[in-house]
Amino acid sequence: MKKKSRFLQTPIEPFAVEAGLSADELLVRMEKISFQGRNLATAHRIWQKMLQDDVTIFLGMAGALSAGGLRMVVAHLILNRYVDCLVSTGANLYHDLHETRGQHHYVGSAHADDAALAEDRIDRVYDTYASEEEFIGNDNWIASFAATLEKRAYTSREFLYRLGGHLWKTTKQEGILTAAYRANVPIFCPAIADSSIGMGLSQARQQKPGAGHIDIIGDIVESANLIIRRPRTASVVLGGGTPKNFINQASVQAEFYSDAVGGHRYALQIVTDVPHFGGASGSSLEEAQSWGKLATDSARVSVQADATIALPILATALAKSAKPFLSKRKKPVFDLAARPMTIDGAAVPSDRFEEVNESAV
Amino acid sequence: MKKKSRFLQTPIEPFAVEAGLSADELLVRMEKISFQGRNLATAHRIWQKMLQDDVTIFLGMAGALSAGGLRMVVAHLILNRYVDCLVSTGANLYHDLHETRGQHHYVGSAHADDAALAEDRIDRVYDTYASEEEFIGNDNWIASFAATLEKRAYTSREFLYRLGGHLWKTTKQEGILTAAYRANVPIFCPAIADSSIGMGLSQARQQKPGAGHIDIIGDIVESANLIIRRPRTASVVLGGGTPKNFINQASVQAEFYSDAVGGHRYALQIVTDVPHFGGASGSSLEEAQSWGKLATDSARVSVQADATIALPILATALAKSAKPFLSKRKKPVFDLAARPMTIDGAAVPSDRFEEVNESAV
Amino acid sequence: MKKKSRFLQTPIEPFAVEAGLSADELLVRMEKISFQGRNLATAHRIWQKMLQDDVTIFLGMAGALSAGGLRMVVAHLILNRYVDCLVSTGANLYHDLHETRGQHHYVGSAHADDAALAEDRIDRVYDTYASEEEFIGNDNWIASFAATLEKRAYTSREFLYRLGGHLWKTTKQEGILTAAYRANVPIFCPAIADSSIGMGLSQARQQKPGAGHIDIIGDIVESANLIIRRPRTASVVLGGGTPKNFINQASVQAEFYSDAVGGHRYALQIVTDVPHFGGASGSSLEEAQSWGKLATDSARVSVQADATIALPILATALAKSAKPFLSKRKKPVFDLAARPMTIDGAAVPSDRFEEVNESAV
Amino acid sequence: MKKKSRFLQTPIEPFAVEAGLSADELLVRMEKISFQGRNLATAHRIWQKMLQDDVTIFLGMAGALSAGGLRMVVAHLILNRYVDCLVSTGANLYHDLHETRGQHHYVGSAHADDAALAEDRIDRVYDTYASEEEFIGNDNWIASFAATLEKRAYTSREFLYRLGGHLWKTTKQEGILTAAYRANVPIFCPAIADSSIGMGLSQARQQKPGAGHIDIIGDIVESANLIIRRPRTASVVLGGGTPKNFINQASVQAEFYSDAVGGHRYALQIVTDVPHFGGASGSSLEEAQSWGKLATDSARVSVQADATIALPILATALAKSAKPFLSKRKKPVFDLAARPMTIDGAAVPSDRFEEVNESAV
Repeated sequence: MKKKSRFLQTPIEPFAVEAGLSADELLVRMEKISFQGRNLATAHRIWQKMLQDDVTIFLGMAGALSAGGLRMVVAHLILNRYVDCLVSTGANLYHDLHETRGQHHYVGSAHADDAALAEDRIDRVYDTYASEEEFIGNDNWIASFAATLEKRAYTSREFLYRLGGHLWKTTKQEGILTAAYRANVPIFCPAIADSSIGMGLSQARQQKPGAGHIDIIGDIVESANLIIRRPRTASVVLGGGTPKNFINQASVQAEFYSDAVGGHRYALQIVTDVPHFGGASGSSLEEAQSWGKLATDSARVSVQADATIALPILATALAKSAKPFLSKRKKPVFDLAARPMTIDGAAVPSDRFEEVNESAV
Repeated sequence: MKKKSRFLQTPIEPFAVEAGLSADELLVRMEKISFQGRNLATAHRIWQKMLQDDVTIFLGMAGALSAGGLRMVVAHLILNRYVDCLVSTGANLYHDLHETRGQHHYVGSAHADDAALAEDRIDRVYDTYASEEEFIGNDNWIASFAATLEKRAYTSREFLYRLGGHLWKTTKQEGILTAAYRANVPIFCPAIADSSIGMGLSQARQQKPGAGHIDIIGDIVESANLIIRRPRTASVVLGGGTPKNFINQASVQAEFYSDAVGGHRYALQIVTDVPHFGGASGSSLEEAQSWGKLATDSARVSVQADATIALPILATALAKSAKPFLSKRKKPVFDLAARPMTIDGAAVPSDRFEEVNESAV
Repeated sequence: MKKKSRFLQTPIEPFAVEAGLSADELLVRMEKISFQGRNLATAHRIWQKMLQDDVTIFLGMAGALSAGGLRMVVAHLILNRYVDCLVSTGANLYHDLHETRGQHHYVGSAHADDAALAEDRIDRVYDTYASEEEFIGNDNWIASFAATLEKRAYTSREFLYRLGGHLWKTTKQEGILTAAYRANVPIFCPAIADSSIGMGLSQARQQKPGAGHIDIIGDIVESANLIIRRPRTASVVLGGGTPKNFINQASVQAEFYSDAVGGHRYALQIVTDVPHFGGASGSSLEEAQSWGKLATDSARVSVQADATIALPILATALAKSAKPFLSKRKKPVFDLAARPMTIDGAAVPSDRFEEVNESAV
Repeated sequence: MKKKSRFLQTPIEPFAVEAGLSADELLVRMEKISFQGRNLATAHRIWQKMLQDDVTIFLGMAGALSAGGLRMVVAHLILNRYVDCLVSTGANLYHDLHETRGQHHYVGSAHADDAALAEDRIDRVYDTYASEEEFIGNDNWIASFAATLEKRAYTSREFLYRLGGHLWKTTKQEGILTAAYRANVPIFCPAIADSSIGMGLSQARQQKPGAGHIDIIGDIVESANLIIRRPRTASVVLGGGTPKNFINQASVQAEFYSDAVGGHRYALQIVTDVPHFGGASGSSLEEAQSWGKLATDSARVSVQADATIALPILATALAKSAKPFLSKRKKPVFDLAARPMTIDGAAVPSDRFEEVNESAV
């Protein structure tokens, strides 16, 4: 009998429907099918591996995930330390703050009459609505808080830690910002100026001259120092955008100053963008290797799916499958109130890179 | 206090992670979030409604779903009569036959060396492999079977019923073709010539002159007559392509001859294509209303997702949530061995439309 | 000085804007940029190469290109023999016939009120409208013509040749069908049952029992025999769908019977679909090599773009750049009125493959 | 005779191929076809209208356009004042600087061996390569320049003006940064920290403590003040990302302080992202109306195309068609060296919004 080709090793096992399967059981069956179903199952497997390894896990978050109903999933990932550091767009943090302050986004229609919405001062995000008036209220709230801060430059990380603290004290409500505050998980927001949080900060200057200074270059230094201090890292990216690049850039920047850094050991992205137009959001994890953003032997998977489908399944599955790994995790310990912040007791300054390599000294 | 806008009625309820949630519980929580997560949950709700109403449910199936591990999901939908009539591409039926005959598709890589695969005679479908030699074996098997048939034209529906029967008798294995045979569910394959089933049929002519005649125009007549006989219909479409259009066309064609036909009452599509390039695969369900393909008051939803993610979840959820509806369903009863085939005892000829309207007489 | 990497050979040359550049000049400048701009320029270059080589050029056409204003581009490509054989969806041929018969599609809006359109019996294709009443007129016209034909099975190729002839005699108007008739270029329509041409054919049975028989399995035989007779081929695909696969399948089928066939020597596709969901429309040209659809040393390019942008530029550019190659082309000569049809004087039967290989005898 | 429906007014005019058509002639013919071809032609028409009206034209630029060969198109648009203000990602400015400094990006392959590239220290952007070593040289060059600046916070706009000036003085080469410097066109880079320009700035701190402070909140104030000073605006967006949102946000922010601001009067976007996943990059221009980002009676068009195809055509067409409008344009006059910068002689501070509305005082 003829030998099988070396390429034909693992048969596809058709997905078998069974009433009552849980999310983790679904994903186990999806590992042996094809296309994005298999990739989602692989993402589940890789995230489990991250949790068992000694790595700092970055979570990047772009797209309207908070407005779209995923903020408590992200809060859950932070509180239970599935991730160690969040990099987010400003909008996701703003929409989180909006709900933490007791307000809502609303179920709407993608086929709305936008002129009618404009007249009612309703802002539309695809099939989701929010009140412009409430948004203006948030802006003022942020501005007022920013005006209370000592007049100096804050990295977005430090500002967001303080904002989360203020939000927690004021509301005692769960959310992304409050979860990160309570769990001592740093949040970076490199494009904070491109969001309503930035708008709130800018309005602080109307209340108090010189308020609202964010040192986003200091964010680069801090994020790279985090990796210099703890060189083994993993990257989980939802939706591309500035968070995806910032997480990669932190690794590349850290490598200038420490040879121990060698790109993320694990990478998982859930994206809807595609590689063939050249944009960073859709860029492949293979391409990321050429830059040294990923270790060439990294475990990695790219899932082409809307996060509003993929993330609820993935997080629910992990809640069961990853439970044993969470308690044993060697997770970094941050002190975010310290100046400079610390990781595992070591300082993470924002004013200068910690140089480890001789060549760089 | 100011009144809320009429647009702000139903708050988004952030998805709450909980270990052990089953597929149907996941979808219930996803109904109150946004974007494609909400749409998938709505698809679940709409399919439940279909099953409670007195409608003939068409399932359209394009894309490499059988090779990709979804054939037993489709077989399950057929055997349990979540659907009443399948319209498929030839490839999906061929890859189903391939596995029902005891062969496999294999887990492969999307980053394969295709020249190496070609040398080993391995055919690649994105991240999935199959043996060309085994495919040639299937072609011969189909050709030999076709050569045994009485020399006349068969609609694809009749041919596939006979092929399913032969496959069942030979293998006693589950699959799409055998499930449809056993459950008396008709399968149409309007583009059968554009597939390896067509290739097998064409090779039958080498064995027996005049073999392999498929009357695909008769398929149009049969499918429209089905709807003329039972005018209330629903459409579930996976992936666009010829099945999507054929299901809609059957309704439009039926309406020429019966005013009782008024477009599908329910429509659900899981697609990855988009509307803005004008192709039928990605066309919106709103556009379908202009053609009369859908009733203007139809319940409908379009889910932008890969079927390898969306269908396992949806089918698993329905296996629990829709169970009570299945036994009570007023489903059409087919006799597919009869010539002409019958639906609920009434003839469904392929040689002429049943004219109901006076105007059309 | 350090040597450059072997990877850094050809610098990107930024596109330089200059008033009055013609389409071909645009494409020459786009060869040295990146992403899909470069790919479009490469498509221009590859099509020129095809025209200089001794290959039969297949053109596949899916998506609403005729309704969308590209039918005269395709007619131009046929009349001037940029291509030798068309494989099309039925809709493109139907919408072509619609206009050739003196009717129009209309500029519409993608944000239309589809219920209002339905009331006015206007059919919408994204941003384009047509009159349902005129469409019904076409269906009748096709039915009446089909009813005049001798009662026997016709390959879609033969039927479309006759339909084109009738259309030309009736209207003397340019279009795809009439161009193909006049230029003796065969048209295959493997999914003709999934279109309004099929609907017209089905209605012919109401007028004349037994009318409207299309032998689409015969199309497989004819198309493969074309390649067996003339094994060097090239493929130009617009939009995926059944035409893309049918052109590839013809080559694979032909190879069963002739070792001289070795996959297309050139392949160019303009698609909007993507590979990562596993569907054939978006499948890569690399994957096609594994199947033997493409020669492993073929010149090939995939352009990710809407054909309504890419094709006008490409065809306009070729009108200048390819002119010298057209007159010298070694193009196949068809006799489509003969039974069987002939290519370069050799018979191309639809009832049996021409076996060349000893092994296949 | 029956009257035509009100929906059927303007027939589609099939595109007629003609050798030697120039870009503007192509677009004129594409206005009467469908889908993205028509949209690209409409973009041409809308840009012409912008140039004839008294509006400040913002250009947003995301995606790897500079690396991909479009930087001289953007420089041309700036120098000839097709646009008045650029909002860009940092990468586009960095890759522009890379080439202005006499270095290159290179034609590469999307199917590269990334491990081999990593070994050669070649960075890949889809099908385009660059030398990591040269990139490190740029970072140092930026760091050294930043270290020469007076120690204070600079808006990204002011920093980029100074960087462009230094680059011009050093190289005398054309490019985006140098064109903007010479044409006195402001550039904002709200996510400058998420780019290699940011990395260069961060490294300046290694050379000179306290260097590299960017006041991106000041950018919000400056950009809104620009619109408060000159409320009629237009938006041209390439590829979404932070630039798209920042341009819209500036209008929304300005409206808080001046009722004369009412959203952009014209909006044109060339995007590849889609609306249905809820992200801002793919969001529709209709949705933008609900937010007041666009005037509800604005002229607007969204083109779904890769900018490497769409922009060369569009810019080349405008070079001929828009020439008469350019000289007569009522374009804003900036003094970017002034502190604060001025527009038409009026101050544009970064430390406080200019309040025009009484209500806001």
